[in-house]
Amino acid sequence: MGFTRESFAGVKPSTSLLSLPCLVTVLLVGSRGGSSAMDNAATEMMAEQSHRQDSASLLIFILLLTLTILTIWLFKHKRFRFLHETGLAMIYGLLVGVILRFGVHVPQSMTDVMLSCAVNASPATLLVNVSGRFYEYTLKGEVSQGKGHQVQDDEMLRKVTFDPEVFFNILLPPIIFHAGYSLKRRHFFRNIGSILAYAFMGTVISCFIIGLIMYGCVSFIKLVGQLGEDFYFTDCLFFGAIISATDPVTVLAIFNELKVDVDLYALLFGESVLNDAVAIVLSSVLLRLEKQIREGAGALRFPGHDGGTKEWQGENQTVTPTNGSIVAYRPAGDNSHSFEAMAMLKSFGVFLGVFSGSLALGVATGVVTALVTKFTKLRDFSLLETALFFLMSWSTFLLAEACGFTGVVAVLFCGITQAHYTYNNLSPESQDRTKQLFELLNFLAENFIFSYMGLTLFSFQSHVFNPLFIIGAFVAVFLGRAANIYPLSFLLNLGRKNKIGANLQHVMMFAGLRGAMAFALAIRDTETYARRMMFSTTLLIVFFTVWVCGGGTTPMLSFMSIPVGVDSDQEASSSAVTGGTQQRNTKHESAWPFRIWYNFDHNYLKPLLTHSGPPLTATLPSCCGPLARCLTSPQAYENEGQLHDDDSDFILNDANVSSMFADVTVSTDASGSHTINRKCSSTNSTGGGASEEALDHELSLTEHEVAIRGTRLVLPMDDPVEPPTTVTLPPPPSPPRSDPRRHRL
Amino acid sequence: MGFTRESFAGVKPSTSLLSLPCLVTVLLVGSRGGSSAMDNAATEMMAEQSHRQDSASLLIFILLLTLTILTIWLFKHKRFRFLHETGLAMIYGLLVGVILRFGVHVPQSMTDVMLSCAVNASPATLLVNVSGRFYEYTLKGEVSQGKGHQVQDDEMLRKVTFDPEVFFNILLPPIIFHAGYSLKRRHFFRNIGSILAYAFMGTVISCFIIGLIMYGCVSFIKLVGQLGEDFYFTDCLFFGAIISATDPVTVLAIFNELKVDVDLYALLFGESVLNDAVAIVLSSVLLRLEKQIREGAGALRFPGHDGGTKEWQGENQTVTPTNGSIVAYRPAGDNSHSFEAMAMLKSFGVFLGVFSGSLALGVATGVVTALVTKFTKLRDFSLLETALFFLMSWSTFLLAEACGFTGVVAVLFCGITQAHYTYNNLSPESQDRTKQLFELLNFLAENFIFSYMGLTLFSFQSHVFNPLFIIGAFVAVFLGRAANIYPLSFLLNLGRKNKIGANLQHVMMFAGLRGAMAFALAIRDTETYARRMMFSTTLLIVFFTVWVCGGGTTPMLSFMSIPVGVDSDQEASSSAVTGGTQQRNTKHESAWPFRIWYNFDHNYLKPLLTHSGPPLTATLPSCCGPLARCLTSPQAYENEGQLHDDDSDFILNDANVSSMFADVTVSTDASGSHTINRKCSSTNSTGGGASEEALDHELSLTEHEVAIRGTRLVLPMDDPVEPPTTVTLPPPPSPPRSDPRRHRL
Repeated sequence: MGFTRESFAGVKPSTSLLSLPCLVTVLLVGSRGGSSAMDNAATEMMAEQSHRQDSASLLIFILLLTLTILTIWLFKHKRFRFLHETGLAMIYGLLVGVILRFGVHVPQSMTDVMLSCAVNASPATLLVNVSGRFYEYTLKGEVSQGKGHQVQDDEMLRKVTFDPEVFFNILLPPIIFHAGYSLKRRHFFRNIGSILAYAFMGTVISCFIIGLIMYGCVSFIKLVGQLGEDFYFTDCLFFGAIISATDPVTVLAIFNELKVDVDLYALLFGESVLNDAVAIVLSSVLLRLEKQIREGAGALRFPGHDGGTKEWQGENQTVTPTNGSIVAYRPAGDNSHSFEAMAMLKSFGVFLGVFSGSLALGVATGVVTALVTKFTKLRDFSLLETALFFLMSWSTFLLAEACGFTGVVAVLFCGITQAHYTYNNLSPESQDRTKQLFELLNFLAENFIFSYMGLTLFSFQSHVFNPLFIIGAFVAVFLGRAANIYPLSFLLNLGRKNKIGANLQHVMMFAGLRGAMAFALAIRDTETYARRMMFSTTLLIVFFTVWVCGGGTTPMLSFMSIPVGVDSDQEASSSAVTGGTQQRNTKHESAWPFRIWYNFDHNYLKPLLTHSGPPLTATLPSCCGPLARCLTSPQAYENEGQLHDDDSDFILNDANVSSMFADVTVSTDASGSHTINRKCSSTNSTGGGASEEALDHELSLTEHEVAIRGTRLVLPMDDPVEPPTTVTLPPPPSPPRSDPRRHRL
Repeated sequence: MGFTRESFAGVKPSTSLLSLPCLVTVLLVGSRGGSSAMDNAATEMMAEQSHRQDSASLLIFILLLTLTILTIWLFKHKRFRFLHETGLAMIYGLLVGVILRFGVHVPQSMTDVMLSCAVNASPATLLVNVSGRFYEYTLKGEVSQGKGHQVQDDEMLRKVTFDPEVFFNILLPPIIFHAGYSLKRRHFFRNIGSILAYAFMGTVISCFIIGLIMYGCVSFIKLVGQLGEDFYFTDCLFFGAIISATDPVTVLAIFNELKVDVDLYALLFGESVLNDAVAIVLSSVLLRLEKQIREGAGALRFPGHDGGTKEWQGENQTVTPTNGSIVAYRPAGDNSHSFEAMAMLKSFGVFLGVFSGSLALGVATGVVTALVTKFTKLRDFSLLETALFFLMSWSTFLLAEACGFTGVVAVLFCGITQAHYTYNNLSPESQDRTKQLFELLNFLAENFIFSYMGLTLFSFQSHVFNPLFIIGAFVAVFLGRAANIYPLSFLLNLGRKNKIGANLQHVMMFAGLRGAMAFALAIRDTETYARRMMFSTTLLIVFFTVWVCGGGTTPMLSFMSIPVGVDSDQEASSSAVTGGTQQRNTKHESAWPFRIWYNFDHNYLKPLLTHSGPPLTATLPSCCGPLARCLTSPQAYENEGQLHDDDSDFILNDANVSSMFADVTVSTDASGSHTINRKCSSTNSTGGGASEEALDHELSLTEHEVAIRGTRLVLPMDDPVEPPTTVTLPPPPSPPRSDPRRHRL
């Protein structure tokens, strides 16, 4: 229920009596001279006071969130849509930040002690022998040189500053899991090719474009003489990586409310979810790269930022660090191309390894959960089922972290797997419970991060605002996004039958907001001058994009003639946005990997992992008969005649059965006749090959294509919930059997 | 989603340049001699490794919980009832503890540094200057002398040991809130007098009885010469306080499943919930008492445990502590009666202050939540509503902690208030959501604590098992419980019409399990020898009571002829257990405070805070007309004709309308005729006085009393869900209007 100042996996004291004594100078204030027992009591009292202050500072955030909730309600009630709840949370955070910074002033308690120590290492645990009694201290981290002298005296500001790892280990996982768990899978898989292109290639392009522009910008600032400290090319790349993570939560909330075209929604949502993962891995790889350089095997020459070179000889040489040049081992990048090429290649390998490892772990946990929920009858006890689901999803994160992979990425793919398989095994009550639980966690975590963001603008005590850098960053972010969307859309449109129209591209360009992920990545490391400058700039970019781009979404949609009011389930065609005519294509060449995957998933994975799908006895070769009988759930046989409904995440509606395999042809059976009988015969046919033929047959069934032009959106400020329907086609008749899981799709 | 090793409200570094340098000796291993940059990289790597190990150790607990869930399912599936899930979690914890202790051996990383420092204080934050770079260290706590030398070399055991404050600040609050939120309020209020007696007087009696017995026991051990270190009377009292907190979660789960008599359930549940609060406040007051003594104003003579006296002169005298006598300022208690009487009186004041302060805060937050949910139309957005509910409940905890009260106690009363008022304002979806959310949190936290308990038996590295002390403690716990239940029951039975039968008393005696609260209180402070001995003993008592008493509940019920299969809502009479004849008594003298409270609550509080109840315009004097109109919700007017259903937590069933005010008369309208018309007229009558008269009139309406003897319970191992009905009366006809909130009561 609560987080506290105390560490969770606290380390218990232990005293290894160690050797190598050396001289340490202790600078101490507040030793009131007196008995040790008295001091002990004083320490306890201070600890209690500190605990109270911690509670008070956490309380500030709770009240902030409460206030945000009430205002959100007011906004929803009044149907204001120019400001999303996250933008609101930021504003409240800003206000509280201003108050804390300029209004309240709690002088720091005089309890800090400065030890000047000639030792060469900073151990994780420190045992201090105070007059014969031992106190254990744990390492909090390095205190940067530039920092310590500024606002040290404000206890309150210190208290409201959280450890950055909190964001990564507590607040981001539920947000990311919820994103994966609530992915609209049908539309996601329909556009998977484009989404992958935007998320992977696009993010990498954006990262490098921004990195290069920023490097130019930093060089210029250096020329002008406004740069305080070092700033290297890897720093610029790192900035590119963290700022490339888009988070269109604001935009998507509005899209959802306005029922904007589902393909646009799927493209934006899929891209933002996956590019978070890409950005995390990319930035952590860049950090690793640096670390490797630092630990560099053998002698590598790194030019210092002043052009001088330092010899790096690994373990044997002692470099006495002088203030301001501790980061001198970073490559300046301007004349170390040979090194960089090698390092880049290596980094790419690490990137692939970390990404695929995290993906595999996430999927594996999801599959295990699916198997457990399938083969135990846990669904009779929905509390147990929900608890198991929650614990397994959490264990993904811990497992990935324990293995050295990225927990957040693993959690994302775990979420997708859970939604695709496990969700089908859960009892209806557990389905509701899990959805509601993660919805709540997501809501709280998200608003907490955004209000913290607002607060940080004033409470963070070592901002570096460099006007030139900030202007450069805004330009770079704009150009990076453009270099992601437009060229890739052009290339994708060559292969896509369902073109991504120019208006759609503009909206995607516009919707590239930066949010929680960029912030969490930026605040994770604010040790150096460069990092602090990046952090401050990131904060401004987040503010700007959330308020301006987020607030401008509704006018933008109207201006770009994006149709709204499309019902994602009933929608007969998503060709409304393309504006072109489509060619019916029975054999979709570009879709074959997805078709193979679909067949495999439908014939083997779904029956194995869930209660739905055809029985394995029908799809597996006869030699595996006993095993298949063992693994097939009784429901599968029952479902045999009504497969269509159960397999609903791919095939929801008979009318758009042909549009589910790829982002190629979107067509509809305009006659409204149902292909359900043929569908069943295809999925019931034994053997994968036969099924595939039937599938092709099916795909050729759709006879008519309809292109619909969306009507121009009238700014729906007054009654946006029921805008005039823009789809001119009559909706296809609803399928004969009602599917309880329909609302998820 | 996750807790991490990182502190939540982490303190940002700050460097106050301080004075008073002194010499410190640093004992350091692992300084690999080399560059500072290298060491920095090494530190980072160590931090990463430490993070991985933290993840791994948390993963152990997640897997333990998962395993527990699966086994629970199996047990429920097979209808085993001799072992509750908490007992199971402990067994798994024990197994993992054994494996970690004797199987895995991860040598400790050589990173600890010992600083021998001549300073006199142990500050909360330490800044270590390592060759010109500053590292911040935070105080973890004192390392006891006896401890440091034993098992310091096992990293894994260190990692699975959590900070004790985690239990108080993270795990207990959801458990306690859930207890308050799910209190069966009708039966709770019906027995409020007895519950308060058991919880307050009983716990205090039990605390002192146990304290006295243990003091005798400790004196004997001292005589025998088996006591290693000091053990004072306050320690014994402290032990009495922590071990007096009962936690019959096991028993109540079985009661719930068997549908045992609701009054027994209410008595046990109410007592255990409230005595947790009493035990917390009592133990914290005892700690405060000690602290006050330590900081003692003026010179107080405290005899040392060897009979010698030490002069205590406050701030001016330096007592150089020698190992083994750091606790010498505690009163030995054998000849300092004058001091103790004063201190006890003072402590009693503190006790009342802390308790009532926490209570007031909890109720206040609950009332604010009720007002907010009533006057905003937040119920249209159940996510917002649930989030608000959650945040407000959490803020109670933080607020109480920030104000120096006890968060857990505040959370308990907040839960009760939320259930009584706010719950009625929530939308049906939010009602489900909040219930399910706290149910899940409670389940996870509870099983986590119990499996941690099991683990701790082997992973805790400084157990002190003293056979004599343990035997003494078991005897003391037994006698303390007996001194609580039997005399109080005797006294209560003098006033109660609905006697607490001997069989009921035996079951209450037997059901005094010790659980999460006793453990959390005991582990909170394991600094001294005495405290460690208490902790180890508490652990054994918890194990014994959960396994033996918890497992023996079903046979016990059978042996004691407690009827089962009583439907708590439909149950026509709860007199089944008393076995005596009751006198109908229209004027219940002992019930008058509750009747006044009921009238006030029903006429003013409910209409003010919820949508139910009579409109305030009807109950308030006419001079307050405008205000009343403003505060009354439109629903109240609508409900005017059907008040009976809305006010369902007091008056659920017409048949037992007379049994709701006190634990005095339980009677039923055996004719089955409904008193609903008169009821409505009473609540609709304007003015409090009129209403009270009508109430009296109502109470006299019930004509017949029926005493039912429960049939002897046949051990219901095979099909316990539907045992033969023991109630011979035909159940009263169900009320005419179905009440959606019925299932909560």
